[in-house]
Formats: sequence, C-alpha cells, structure tokens
Amino acid sequence: MAPTKKGILERLNAGEVVIGDGGFVFALEKRGYVKAGPWTPEAAAEYPDAVRQLHREFLRAGANVMQTFTFYASDDKLENRGNKVTFTGAQVNAAACDLAREVANEGDALVAGGVSQTPSYLSCKSETEVKAIFKKQLDVFTKKNVDFLIAEYFEHVEEAVWAVEVLKETGKPVAASLCIGPEGDMHGVSPGECAVRLVKAGAQIVGVNCHFDPLTCVKAVKKMKEGVEKAGLKAHYMVQPLAFHTPDCNCQGFIDLPEFPFGLEPRILTRWDMHQYAREAYNAGIRFIGGCCGFEPYHIRAVAEELAPERGFLPAASEKHGMWGAGLEMHTKPWVRARARRDYWENLKPASGRPLCASMSTPDKWGVTRGHAELMQQKEATSKDQLKQLFDRSKTH
Amino acid sequence: MAPTKKGILERLNAGEVVIGDGGFVFALEKRGYVKAGPWTPEAAAEYPDAVRQLHREFLRAGANVMQTFTFYASDDKLENRGNKVTFTGAQVNAAACDLAREVANEGDALVAGGVSQTPSYLSCKSETEVKAIFKKQLDVFTKKNVDFLIAEYFEHVEEAVWAVEVLKETGKPVAASLCIGPEGDMHGVSPGECAVRLVKAGAQIVGVNCHFDPLTCVKAVKKMKEGVEKAGLKAHYMVQPLAFHTPDCNCQGFIDLPEFPFGLEPRILTRWDMHQYAREAYNAGIRFIGGCCGFEPYHIRAVAEELAPERGFLPAASEKHGMWGAGLEMHTKPWVRARARRDYWENLKPASGRPLCASMSTPDKWGVTRGHAELMQQKEATSKDQLKQLFDRSKTH
Amino acid sequence: MAPTKKGILERLNAGEVVIGDGGFVFALEKRGYVKAGPWTPEAAAEYPDAVRQLHREFLRAGANVMQTFTFYASDDKLENRGNKVTFTGAQVNAAACDLAREVANEGDALVAGGVSQTPSYLSCKSETEVKAIFKKQLDVFTKKNVDFLIAEYFEHVEEAVWAVEVLKETGKPVAASLCIGPEGDMHGVSPGECAVRLVKAGAQIVGVNCHFDPLTCVKAVKKMKEGVEKAGLKAHYMVQPLAFHTPDCNCQGFIDLPEFPFGLEPRILTRWDMHQYAREAYNAGIRFIGGCCGFEPYHIRAVAEELAPERGFLPAASEKHGMWGAGLEMHTKPWVRARARRDYWENLKPASGRPLCASMSTPDKWGVTRGHAELMQQKEATSKDQLKQLFDRSKTH
Amino acid sequence: MAPTKKGILERLNAGEVVIGDGGFVFALEKRGYVKAGPWTPEAAAEYPDAVRQLHREFLRAGANVMQTFTFYASDDKLENRGNKVTFTGAQVNAAACDLAREVANEGDALVAGGVSQTPSYLSCKSETEVKAIFKKQLDVFTKKNVDFLIAEYFEHVEEAVWAVEVLKETGKPVAASLCIGPEGDMHGVSPGECAVRLVKAGAQIVGVNCHFDPLTCVKAVKKMKEGVEKAGLKAHYMVQPLAFHTPDCNCQGFIDLPEFPFGLEPRILTRWDMHQYAREAYNAGIRFIGGCCGFEPYHIRAVAEELAPERGFLPAASEKHGMWGAGLEMHTKPWVRARARRDYWENLKPASGRPLCASMSTPDKWGVTRGHAELMQQKEATSKDQLKQLFDRSKTH
Repeated sequence: MAPTKKGILERLNAGEVVIGDGGFVFALEKRGYVKAGPWTPEAAAEYPDAVRQLHREFLRAGANVMQTFTFYASDDKLENRGNKVTFTGAQVNAAACDLAREVANEGDALVAGGVSQTPSYLSCKSETEVKAIFKKQLDVFTKKNVDFLIAEYFEHVEEAVWAVEVLKETGKPVAASLCIGPEGDMHGVSPGECAVRLVKAGAQIVGVNCHFDPLTCVKAVKKMKEGVEKAGLKAHYMVQPLAFHTPDCNCQGFIDLPEFPFGLEPRILTRWDMHQYAREAYNAGIRFIGGCCGFEPYHIRAVAEELAPERGFLPAASEKHGMWGAGLEMHTKPWVRARARRDYWENLKPASGRPLCASMSTPDKWGVTRGHAELMQQKEATSKDQLKQLFDRSKTH
Repeated sequence: MAPTKKGILERLNAGEVVIGDGGFVFALEKRGYVKAGPWTPEAAAEYPDAVRQLHREFLRAGANVMQTFTFYASDDKLENRGNKVTFTGAQVNAAACDLAREVANEGDALVAGGVSQTPSYLSCKSETEVKAIFKKQLDVFTKKNVDFLIAEYFEHVEEAVWAVEVLKETGKPVAASLCIGPEGDMHGVSPGECAVRLVKAGAQIVGVNCHFDPLTCVKAVKKMKEGVEKAGLKAHYMVQPLAFHTPDCNCQGFIDLPEFPFGLEPRILTRWDMHQYAREAYNAGIRFIGGCCGFEPYHIRAVAEELAPERGFLPAASEKHGMWGAGLEMHTKPWVRARARRDYWENLKPASGRPLCASMSTPDKWGVTRGHAELMQQKEATSKDQLKQLFDRSKTH
Repeated sequence: MAPTKKGILERLNAGEVVIGDGGFVFALEKRGYVKAGPWTPEAAAEYPDAVRQLHREFLRAGANVMQTFTFYASDDKLENRGNKVTFTGAQVNAAACDLAREVANEGDALVAGGVSQTPSYLSCKSETEVKAIFKKQLDVFTKKNVDFLIAEYFEHVEEAVWAVEVLKETGKPVAASLCIGPEGDMHGVSPGECAVRLVKAGAQIVGVNCHFDPLTCVKAVKKMKEGVEKAGLKAHYMVQPLAFHTPDCNCQGFIDLPEFPFGLEPRILTRWDMHQYAREAYNAGIRFIGGCCGFEPYHIRAVAEELAPERGFLPAASEKHGMWGAGLEMHTKPWVRARARRDYWENLKPASGRPLCASMSTPDKWGVTRGHAELMQQKEATSKDQLKQLFDRSKTH
Repeated sequence: MAPTKKGILERLNAGEVVIGDGGFVFALEKRGYVKAGPWTPEAAAEYPDAVRQLHREFLRAGANVMQTFTFYASDDKLENRGNKVTFTGAQVNAAACDLAREVANEGDALVAGGVSQTPSYLSCKSETEVKAIFKKQLDVFTKKNVDFLIAEYFEHVEEAVWAVEVLKETGKPVAASLCIGPEGDMHGVSPGECAVRLVKAGAQIVGVNCHFDPLTCVKAVKKMKEGVEKAGLKAHYMVQPLAFHTPDCNCQGFIDLPEFPFGLEPRILTRWDMHQYAREAYNAGIRFIGGCCGFEPYHIRAVAEELAPERGFLPAASEKHGMWGAGLEMHTKPWVRARARRDYWENLKPASGRPLCASMSTPDKWGVTRGHAELMQQKEATSKDQLKQLFDRSKTH
C-alpha cells in the first residue's frame, strides 16, 4: 500500500464511502476468459492482460477496492469434476495479487485478498481440513502483503466463521460476506445471528454478496445490522449484490433460477437501478458498497455517480458519461435528446422485448445442502450415468 | 495483410463463412470509454489498451474481421452539439487502423476500414460536400492499407451510394450495409431496391447492420437478396444486427424505443438466441455474419460455435465454453449439472425478473428525417431552450 | 316486426348506428348452459329462461339486433362426434326464434336468423348437399318471420357464397360475415375479394365476426370495404369481433391459440378497450357494430356508450353505469373515488396478475383445412385411439 | 327450510363439503344491474328476474348456499354519496330473502342472510349505533326465516365482533368472514387473533372473503385455524375469495390495485385455477368453500367438479361440461380435440395477449382507515372540489 493511502478501517471509521468492484467471474466469462461451470480464476495466470484491463475499468468506474481474482482458487476446487488445471492454486493466487496491486497503485484503491466457500466443507470435511485450505491461500496473500482480507460467498455461516478465524491470524482487517438473503443461511441461521457470529469470530466488516439482487441484499444486511446492534456489538457493513433482478428466488438464490447461468440477460439491472441501489444501501448505513456477478464497469460507475455528493467527486469514467443521461444532449436525433433528463430514466419501466417470456420463473428446489451425496466433491469428470440420473431427477421437480 | 491470408472476396467466393466482430461503441460505453450521446470513437487514440483488448476478445471469439473503430469519426460528427474534441478525425482514424491491424495480425482476421452516415447528409449538404467527408477518412484507410472497406449504418440508400462511389476509387473490395429493416430506408426505398442500387454503385457485398434484432435483419437481407437476384445481378451478403430483441420497432429501429440507449438490458440476446440467428443467417445464404450494438464477445463466440461444423473449427475462446452448456457438468450444484444439455437451453424462455415491466414498448414516432430543422447539424451544445422545446414536444407523442 | 320499427337496411341506409349483441355460446357456457366442444345451442329449447335473460341483458345494454341462438343448429353439426341430441335442429331453431322475438318486442331491436359454417362443407360434401342444410334452417326462419338473415362464421368464402345464395331466396335482407382476419380466408382469398364475391352473391351487408380481436377485425373489414369500392360495388359493413386480445394469432384465429377455449381469461377486453373499438369501427365507416365470443352485456354497453353522441341516447343499462367510471364518485374509499375520470381509465395498462405467464403464445399451426381427413365429420364419439393419435401429433408441433 | 334439509352446522359437523355461491355484485354489474361505485343491491327489488337467474346458475353449478343479495343493504350505505335510492333497506332485504328462498327450494341449498361492514363504523359511530344498523337488517332475516347468518366483508375485526354479537341473538348459526389477508385486519390484528375473537363472540364458522385471490385467502384461513386451535377453541372454516389473481396486493387487498374495479379482466382466474383452489382449501381443512367478486357460475362448477370425489356427485351444470376439458373431444378441429386432457390444462400458462402490460401493478397505499376524514360517510354526492382534491392527491402517490 502506498504510504499515503488510508486503510479500509481508517476509511470506514471516518464514515467514508468505500466502493467495491464488480464480479470478475461473470464479466470475464462474457469476454471469453472464464469457463462457466468450474468458474475457476486461472485466467489471472493465463490471460493477465484481460484481467488487468477489467481491474482498470472498475478502478476508472470509481472502485476503491481491487479484489484479487482468486474466487474458487483453492486446490480442492480447481480439481473439481474434471476441470483441467494447468496452474496450481498458489500460482493463480500469486498472479492475481500482482495484478490487483499493479492496478491499485494506479489510483486510490486497496487490494483485498479473497477466500470463498470450499467444496471440502460441502463434502463434510473436518474443520481442520477446511481451515488448512484457507491457510494455503492466505500464505500467498501474506507474502504479497494485501491490504485486507475478505471471506466471501459462504452459504453456511459455520464455514465463514472458520474462514474468519484463519484470516484473523494475519492481523490484517477482515471482512466476512455471506451469499445469503433475508431468510438466512442454508442451515436456517438468521442474518442477524450470522452477523453476530462473524463479528464475534473477529470480522470487522460483515455483509452479504452474490445470490440476490441489490434490494434483497440490502434487506439482508439491514437484518444483520439489527442483529449486531441488538447484541451490543459493533461492525461495519458491506454489500456486493448481483446485477440481476431476482424477485422469484428462494433462499438458495439465483443458482436455483432456471435461467442460471446462461439465460440471465433479461434480468440485468440498468444503471438507473444501480442509482436506487446505491442510495438504499447508503441509507441503510452500509458504507462498503460494491457488486458481484453481473456487474459491468458502468454499474459501478452508476453507484459512484449516485454517491458523488457524499464522496465529493465523480469517478474518472464519468468523463464519458453525462449524469442522468445528460450526454444525450449531444445525440443526433431530437427525440433522443428529449430523453436527456433524470425523470425520464427514473420512471422508465423497460420492456423485455420478449413477448413469449414471463416476468418470473419457478426456481428449482432440490433442497440439497451440505452433506448430500450429490454435493460431494469429485475430482473426476461427471460421468454419463451421473448426468442421466440428474436429467431424470430434474424432470420430477 | 499477411501474404498467406485470403482476402474477403476470395473467402466469400469460396463459400467460406466470414464472422464479423461486434459493435465497439456500445461495448466500450459499458466499459467506460465511449460517451453515449455523441458516440464518437476518440478512445482509439485516447485509450488504446481498452480498444485493443476488445479487438482481441472478438478475435478470440472467432471474428475474421477487425473493423477499425472509426464509427462517426468524421470531423463534422466529432464536432456535433458541443462534443469535446481533443483529437482530429485523421488522428482517430489512424490510431484505429493501427489497433485493428495489430490484433488482426495475431490471427486469421482482415482489417476493414469503415465509414458511416454523416450529419452533413441529414443537414442536406450537397453530394460533393458529403463525398468530401468520406474522402477524408478514406485517405487514412488507404495510407494504412486496410484490407477492405465497409460503408455502414446508413439510413438513406442515397448517401450509401455516394459512400460506395467514393470507396470504390481505392480499388479495394467494398461492402455496403444499411441500418434498415424489412420496410426499407427512411425515404421508403425497399430493401431489394436499395441493394440493387448499392450493387450497381459497385459494392461487392451488401447487407444491413444495427437498428433491428437478428431475425429482423436476416429478413431484411433476404429481401435484398431477392431484389438483387430479380435484377439479374450478383453480390455477397452480410448482416450485423443488434444484440437486442426489438419486436416492437417501427422502421426507424431501436433509436425510437423508449429504452434507447440506457434501458435496453432486458432485451439483450442470450447466447442461445445467437445460435438461432447464426443458423438462420446461414440458411438465408448470408456468409458475412457479425454483430453490432449490444454484441459482447460471447455473442460472437456463439455464432462461431453454431457454425463450427461449416467452418471446420471452434474459436479460441471455446476453450472456456462447453458447447450447449456442457461446462456445467463441472458445476458444484447437482441441479445446475442437470442443465448441461442442449434441449434445456434451446427451450428455455428466460424470465425478465421485472414484474412491473411490459414485454413491448410503444416506440417514439416523431417522423422527422433528412431535412427537418431538428436534425440539422449544430456545433454548439444543445441549449436549455432547445431542450425545453424537445421535452415539451416529447409529451405530446 | 312491430309496424313502427325500421328494418335493418332502412336504418343503415339512413346512416344510423346499429348495435349487435354479443356471442351467446361463450356467455352461456360460463353460465352453465352450453357445452364447450360441441358448442351447440340446444339450450334455446332446454333452458329458455337462461337464454331469454341473456337476450334481455344485451337489449338493455343497447343492442338493436337479437340474433337467434341458432349457431351450429344444423342437424349435421348437432350429431357431430358423439354429441347427445335431445332436440331436432328444427326444434332448436324454432325455440330460438321465439325467444329472440319475445325480447326484441320489448325494445327497439330486430330479429336476425343466423346460419353458419357446416361440418358438411369441411367434409367436402357437394354444393347441393350443403345448400340443403341451410335451406332446412331457413324454413324455420321463414315460418317464424325473422326480420333479416345473417350468414356468419364462415372460414371459406365459397361456403358463405352458397349460404347467401340460399338466404337470398327469401327476399329478406342478407348479411354475410366471415370469421377471417386481414390475411383472408382459409383458401387464401383476400378480404377484399371475399367481400366482392359476397356482394355479388346478393349480400347487402358484409363483414367479419369472431376469431380475432376488435382492432384486427376492423382492419379486415376496412380491406373488405376497399375491395368493394374498388370493384365499383356498394354495401353496408358489419363487425362482430371477439372480446379477447389476439395479437399472436395466425390466419386461423383464436382457435389455434393454446388458451382456446378454457384459458382465455387474461385476454378478455375491458370496457375501455371497447370504447376504442367502437370508435375505430365507426371511423372506418362500419355501422353494424356488435360482438361475438367473449362479449358480456357490459361490453356491448360500452360500445353503446361510446357511440351515444352519434346515436343520441344512452342504453337502458347505463342507469347502472357512470360514463368513464363516474360511478366511482360514490365509492367509499377516497383513492377509488380519485379514479372517477376518463384519463385514468384510458391510460391504464392493466396488469395480468400472472408473473409466470407470458404476454403472447405460440399458436398451433396444423395447417389442416377443408378436405383433410381429420376434419371429416364423424357422428360417433372420438375414439381413444383417435385421441391418442392427436395427443402424439400435438407434441410434434 | 324444507324438513328434509340438513342445517349448515349439521353438514359441517358431519364433515360434508358445503359449496358457497359467487359474488353477486360484480357478476350483476357485468350484466347491467348493479352500479359500480355504490355497489348497492337494489336490483333484488328492481330486477328480480336477473337476480333469480344468477341464483339458479350458482345452484346449478353446485352451490349449497344461496346468500341473500343484501350486500351493503343497510340504510346508511344505500344513502352514501349521492346514491339514488328508490327502495328502503327493508324492501331490498325482504326481496332478496324471497329470491334466495325461492331458488334454494329448487335444490339442496340453504339460505344465508348476510350483513357486511357499514360506513357508520368507518365514520367512528358508536357500538350502539352500528349494532342498530345490523339489527335492522336482522329483523328482516328473522321474519323471512333464513337458515343461517353470515357477517362478511369486514376490514376490522372489532366491527365484525359487534355484528356477530347482534346476529347471535337470533339463535341461528352464525358465520363470520373478514376481508383480510395473511397480514391481518386494518388495525393490524393477526388472522389468528381475529378468529379467536370471532369464535369467542359466538361465531361457529370463521373465515375470510373477498379482497385477495384464492391461494392468499386459504393462507389467511390457515392462520385463523392455527390461532383458534392454539387457543384451545373449536370452529368450522369458510373461504370465499376473489376470482382475480392478486399477487401484488398489500394488506388492503384488491381495492388498492390500480385496475380496481374496471380493469381487472386480465386477472380473472380460469376454471383450472379453481380446481387448484378447491383442492388447497379442502386440504387446509376448510369445508365451506365458495367465492366472492369475480366468480361466475363456471368457477363454482369447477370447485364442485374438483370436490366431486369427496361429495360423491357432480353438479347439475356438469351436464354441459366435460371434466378437465373432455368436451373438446367433440370439437371440429383436430388440434383442439388434442387438448381434451387434464395435463394440457393443468400445465398451461395462459398468455395475457397484452404485450404493453406488465404482470404486476403498484397498488395505491393511501394508508387511510377508520376515522380518517376522507372515509367519513357523506350523504350528498362527492363535490367537484372534493374530486379535484382527490385527483391531485392521487398524483403524489
């Protein structure tokens, strides 16, 4: 970290807004560098130019945090179900740290090393075994001297607590973020109780990421905040939601939607939805506000533009964007120039252009979670017989 | 062009499929490098890394054509309605040529220099004046020795014919693409008649781009083909549509949709929609198949994957994509693994996740075109009075 | 007819608006007196109170025409595919005439005897055989002295011409109405050409009924009018559309929609849709304006209310209806009183309340018509084997 | 009551299914005999034939209860906001009793005298004053010797308790039904607590009617049942929901929907929705199952058809209806015959035919209830000034 940069807790303690980046996995899948299915981040080592460029776009859009592209970069995950591995977890984690640091140095951003849910936990491995996996990633983060740590995308608070306990050992600030909604974690623990456990484990920042749309996530973090305050504890709050509308999700989130992951396009939020999200998150007392799957740089820019009065400045990328559509004043067609105003975009209800499609889906509800046979880690590729069983089963749901 | 590369006509004459790239203006707007409103391509000179990266992603996705990022790079357009200009048209055009060539050299792609509709034409400038504008861009393309030329995004066939006449002088192959639908150009000239005029003016490749969704564009090109064949002429055909569903458009295309340009997200096509598009375009006898606004690299990859049997190979980016969702065999959750099959994705009707939104919009219908006062070019920024008049007028539509 | 009543042609020649009634088959199916499938009108003889009440409601709503409830009351249709028959065609026709006359006498309405498309025609019976069927119904109408005759619901203009030729022999005015849309009849004859043939056969009034929504039907009648005028002929025009929105229909109309006949509820027109319909029909020069399947008395009342300025009076049932929602001024809740105004209802886009449903359907397209084996008349019930074949076939469409 | 008929409690105690009728106010509004706004039932005296016919249709559809058409037949309501009154409350109530009894005698149905929420309560009149209003209606019911009594359509349990206390004095069985959803009454009293108070006040049957769609109402009654059982009490349960889908309602129900009351058509339930409703109500332990606004006779028939196995017989109107679409075996078109099967209709998601309409609405949320000035009873017509204030206010919501 450059000597002049304030740390994450310093910023949050001062009441500053910290803007996160967006989700790399989905953004790079669309660009051709991540494979949907395994979702592993080997591109950090394989295609550094592509990853660096995405970091730069988020930085330019206003992000203060460069998360290392290390989602699912644990060895047990890299080897899951036939995924071809050409880099070790350590190599991927190291490359990701270097890229994040390089771009962070180009602006006012911090580097956050991230760990996430492991297949080992879902396969009922022991606390010791799971913690060893986090430790392995952490060794790289320590060596690369990241600015702070994020334990994110946990469906079960129990595993998140284990992660926090490992991360705490570094002495660096720790944020903990679950991928849960207002109904709580996959074991039925409420958001309030989840937050309390995470704070007690040592997390200074708690919140949720992924799995639900922004307003749903803000609702979940509000419940966390209520729980923490009721318990007489203190914390900072973070939220990094999907950029997809998910009104029809059950507690498992967008994974259960029939559109996941290749038919989510009609659900993508507009930049104006992001203005509303940023404002609601801010009003809820959340100060670390970012994004996850589905976020493109212009979504983060919209968050930064909405919160420009609070932050005191616009992001760099706003040079290429008129606030509330003002750039349209320069459009050739007069009826498009007529749209260069806030109330037009705030009130627009965008059509889907899909007259044969409904507005909501019926999510899958297989109801399997930690410990079910079908969730057990498996190194070999899914076999044809296994696939056939899954297809047959899917017809009965 | 590398000595071993076949030219565009050589490929098309041999019956090969030529895959185009996607639209840079919209893709780079989302990444923070293009301003919606003026839509000018100064980023080619300002942010070459960002432009190069997008070229590479399309190349990797299977594109055989790198269009120079010179859309609206004419001086009259760069100066329109208060747009801040820091580069001359010549500088932008030259930088764009270099970037396209650099990436084209990394694979089996050609460089196409592009000109498009001018504000001068809409402002009723003379044929001589309009042609002078095209000539100015062409000088750069000649100097940079692009492989072929595309006159694209013309709403009026008259102006496109002028462009073709200028481009022909270089002796390079010329493609001409109008932004019209099956109803014809803004003066009411049918697609068939438009195509005949363009072929007679010297275009070897004719087609449509932008303004309408893929299936609508294919329908328009079919009409062009019928017209050309009926007239006893010969041509190759190209199509580079939007990646947005536009069933509700009138003849002016997506510019008239209330969602243009900041609320189009729910209309974005999925990769499976692209498979259907590629097949229909191929079946219609079109061999130059690409994309325009809204296309991301994964959309072009889907086109390349659908036409892999005809081309004999998959694009590079398919290393990160299982055909028809096969990568999901490696997903952690069993119900997502159950989606790893073609019929699942082919039959899915994706929900919008927006219960308060309709499936279609009522487009604007101002009915102004070439010659109307409100379309006249204006260097100064749109004034507050002008804006007020536009807002008032928009309420009566 | 009471001596003081003007005949149908007298009214139309004077430029008066003549309001038709709504479709009895669908309305009485919902009340429990008609069986969907055979759709036969034996209730005229079996449940006269129920039929009389519906006549009264339409009279009260403003209808000037009481159509005899004799749709499909030909013996060949009554005996189709296992339909249980307890009354002869002659009995049903006679009972229907008496009921229509009784109620017509209670107000300013005329009695119209109606014949419609026969299974015999679809089964390729000869012109002589088909005409004999019409003749049989006509004998009753003559005996009961109806005021005029309507040949309606014909998919093929050829059969309609035969019907007109038979009906003309009575010397009574004859109206001819096809169940076609703007694309023409099932043999591909255009609406204009259909109308010309019907007028030449002797029909004084021509138009369309059923199968399509109001605006589509008005469009089809406009084409008829153009055809008739182009041919230098003269006629009056009628329209009696569905009360269902059918934007997704192909040329066969709502029969092909997957919702036909038991899932059409979300498509039902509001009274405000009917205002628009009445106005557009009037503006198109149509003066006999009524309804078909889906129309309830309040729909006809809305037509009569929209055309009250032209007719000079409101219908009787308007005593129980405030124009444009004015009755809501008496509502208990203040926010409902706030809806007591025209612009509220004219601009409302009613939600479906069905988030899992799309806005359009993909219609069936079996493409079978006159002469196909599956359309042949069959007295016996559809066998299990026949049903199985149909189900199997339906899966491949 | 005929000597051989079993009373309501005798039936329910024996575990029989009792089927209610549908709502008369909405059904007769569509037929032209009730004015939307005041919604008063003077037609019982004015147009007895129309009211009798509707009773007969519900009886024929399977209803065991003929509710007297006395909704809002209290003198204070009849005189509200300029409603023109030509009959006294006593006359209307007496005529309604006679009609219900006449038709009940034609089959196996009981007569239920009904009272409902009063403007006096909303205007904060005293318990004594409100009870006097119920007493006045009750005098007629006693004289006409109805079989049992229903206090229905109460938004506040307090007023419903007062009604039950009055009705109990007759010694006849008393049912009490609130127009609330799972969130409870307008004062925030939960369904369980509401039910307990009503049972303690003496109601033998408790439940909900109107305001919400069937599945929502069943959910509310389940909560009532839980409350009653938890309190160690006993009761029978009833449910008479809307025939409109209302997923978007807040606690005030469909009154708040922008479509109320003249744009609800797209929300109307199909007969297949009714099968699901009847089954869910039965499974929830509810045995008095009927309908309210929006129900047409065919909806009640569908309830009776679904519960035919439990009741042991089909309703009379099923002679005109094949179970699960079986009547379509007799349809002329083969692709419609292919729909003659249960799985077709059970799985159909009907399209709205309205591409410009959303699937859900934003309900009004004025948040006014008992005691607010705008809810106060007013005999004179709403003035223009009052209307203007309402319109202005509606724009700010």
